[in-house]
Amino acid sequence: MPLLVVGSVALDTVETPHGVVKDALGGSAIFFSYAASYFAPVRLVGVVGEDFPASHRETLEDRNVDTSGLIVEKGGATFRWRGKYEGDMSVAETLEVHLNVLGTFDPHLSPEFAETPFVFLANGRPDLQRKVLSQTKKRKLVVADTMNFWIETERDELYALLREVDGLFLNDGEARMLTDEINLVRAGWKVLDLGPRFVIVKKGEHGSMFLSPHETYTMPAFPLADVVDPTGAGDSFAGGFMGYLASIGRTDHAALKTAMAYGTVVASLNVEDFSLRRFQRTDREEIDRRLATYRAMMSF
Amino acid sequence: MPLLVVGSVALDTVETPHGVVKDALGGSAIFFSYAASYFAPVRLVGVVGEDFPASHRETLEDRNVDTSGLIVEKGGATFRWRGKYEGDMSVAETLEVHLNVLGTFDPHLSPEFAETPFVFLANGRPDLQRKVLSQTKKRKLVVADTMNFWIETERDELYALLREVDGLFLNDGEARMLTDEINLVRAGWKVLDLGPRFVIVKKGEHGSMFLSPHETYTMPAFPLADVVDPTGAGDSFAGGFMGYLASIGRTDHAALKTAMAYGTVVASLNVEDFSLRRFQRTDREEIDRRLATYRAMMSF
Repeated sequence: MPLLVVGSVALDTVETPHGVVKDALGGSAIFFSYAASYFAPVRLVGVVGEDFPASHRETLEDRNVDTSGLIVEKGGATFRWRGKYEGDMSVAETLEVHLNVLGTFDPHLSPEFAETPFVFLANGRPDLQRKVLSQTKKRKLVVADTMNFWIETERDELYALLREVDGLFLNDGEARMLTDEINLVRAGWKVLDLGPRFVIVKKGEHGSMFLSPHETYTMPAFPLADVVDPTGAGDSFAGGFMGYLASIGRTDHAALKTAMAYGTVVASLNVEDFSLRRFQRTDREEIDRRLATYRAMMSF
Repeated sequence: MPLLVVGSVALDTVETPHGVVKDALGGSAIFFSYAASYFAPVRLVGVVGEDFPASHRETLEDRNVDTSGLIVEKGGATFRWRGKYEGDMSVAETLEVHLNVLGTFDPHLSPEFAETPFVFLANGRPDLQRKVLSQTKKRKLVVADTMNFWIETERDELYALLREVDGLFLNDGEARMLTDEINLVRAGWKVLDLGPRFVIVKKGEHGSMFLSPHETYTMPAFPLADVVDPTGAGDSFAGGFMGYLASIGRTDHAALKTAMAYGTVVASLNVEDFSLRRFQRTDREEIDRRLATYRAMMSF
């Protein structure tokens, strides 16, 4: 089944202990789309400026991502982020942000896109996420991502969103901030009380935790000797997760758990190089091989 | 098969957001012994002062721990530690340490104890750990624990120890300190180069990583809504790990992995209450039930 993502498209300049990339293709919707494209047809909704290279759009279309919803704003410039990772690379230091055309992004879904059954609302203003949601007509599963900034500044809008989505991605610090609860399991349960039927707490190099009224479990990150650039790991995780679900058209507990494993494995590939480089030299077969290794790791 | 542990026996005063205990039974050898006692006969070697309550020795003997190697030093006082955990309780703040009789601890193994096949050298001065090792006669598996203090002050002695043990436990920060390597997988590999055939990197609430030339994997911590006191978690892990191995008398890869799972589960029980309280209301059946839950959590 097809999969819709609405989120940011960026030109990223990133420095890590392993090197630098300048104006590389990035943004939540990009990492998500590319990761999900190994599993299901992806429909991307976003906005860029006239400076957005045609080659980047081709990069997506080569993976069968439908970019008809990627609007080019006349006279505008693409969202840019410049960041740096040091030491264990667990935290990105933001050096520069230029929202540019993203600042006035007002997503509209085409009639075809509005009928997409699987919907991912990448991190963004909660009122815009809700606006997208209100345009969807045949949704089977809606999952949102959010961040500390919205928890601080748009809490009521975020609460309204949480009453309407099936699942929520957020990181451990955000889960604690949203719920005023230090213990992550309890924090996750409190998020469930706000509406979603499942919550995925991202813990970076420590993996992720899944919580629903039915079950709570942690999936470790795939152990890696070479982490080159963590940018986009969370959105790649979400892409693998949602992509797998869309590919099988199911959202039961067993499906969600296998989707967690796929998300883990896809994110582990993403961080092995800058931007989309590692994805660009992988395929579904390699993803499935790594999933098999991961499954063996967790079997005793 | 029986299991030998040499380590500290303490009277702990601990404060966490969930309460306080005063002069509670603690120390590495205690948590280890009690945890391992659910699996195999344990032989404890340690030292206490005349202030050590007889009831504490009974607590151990009730679990079939052989305390004939627990020496009472005349006129001496038992090792005392006072510590505090705040927030997410990931770090213990040491408020007071009185080594007392532990400061001159010079372990001697009885002829019977010297023939124990499974040996755990709990955290301690590396030269003393080696001295114990030199007294063992029929060892099948020797695993040591260490800490940052010895890495800083006794590095050469620690290196000498590492050439003689089969396995090493240390935490993530210590692995990085010992190897000057930020990436944990690479840090673990570098520890393997120092001698042991496997390394277990403890990551607290994030679980643990196992590394050998044969395989590398992470086991997540058992997710808990109620962490009351993390004191002794690492030694409880080691106790579950070594206890299980001693119980089956095997040290192959599959055995080591199941032992990792048992260590995880036993440690998760330990932190649900102060001192040995949670252990004192558990049994092997409950441990096995939690192991089954843990296995199901990791299956997809």
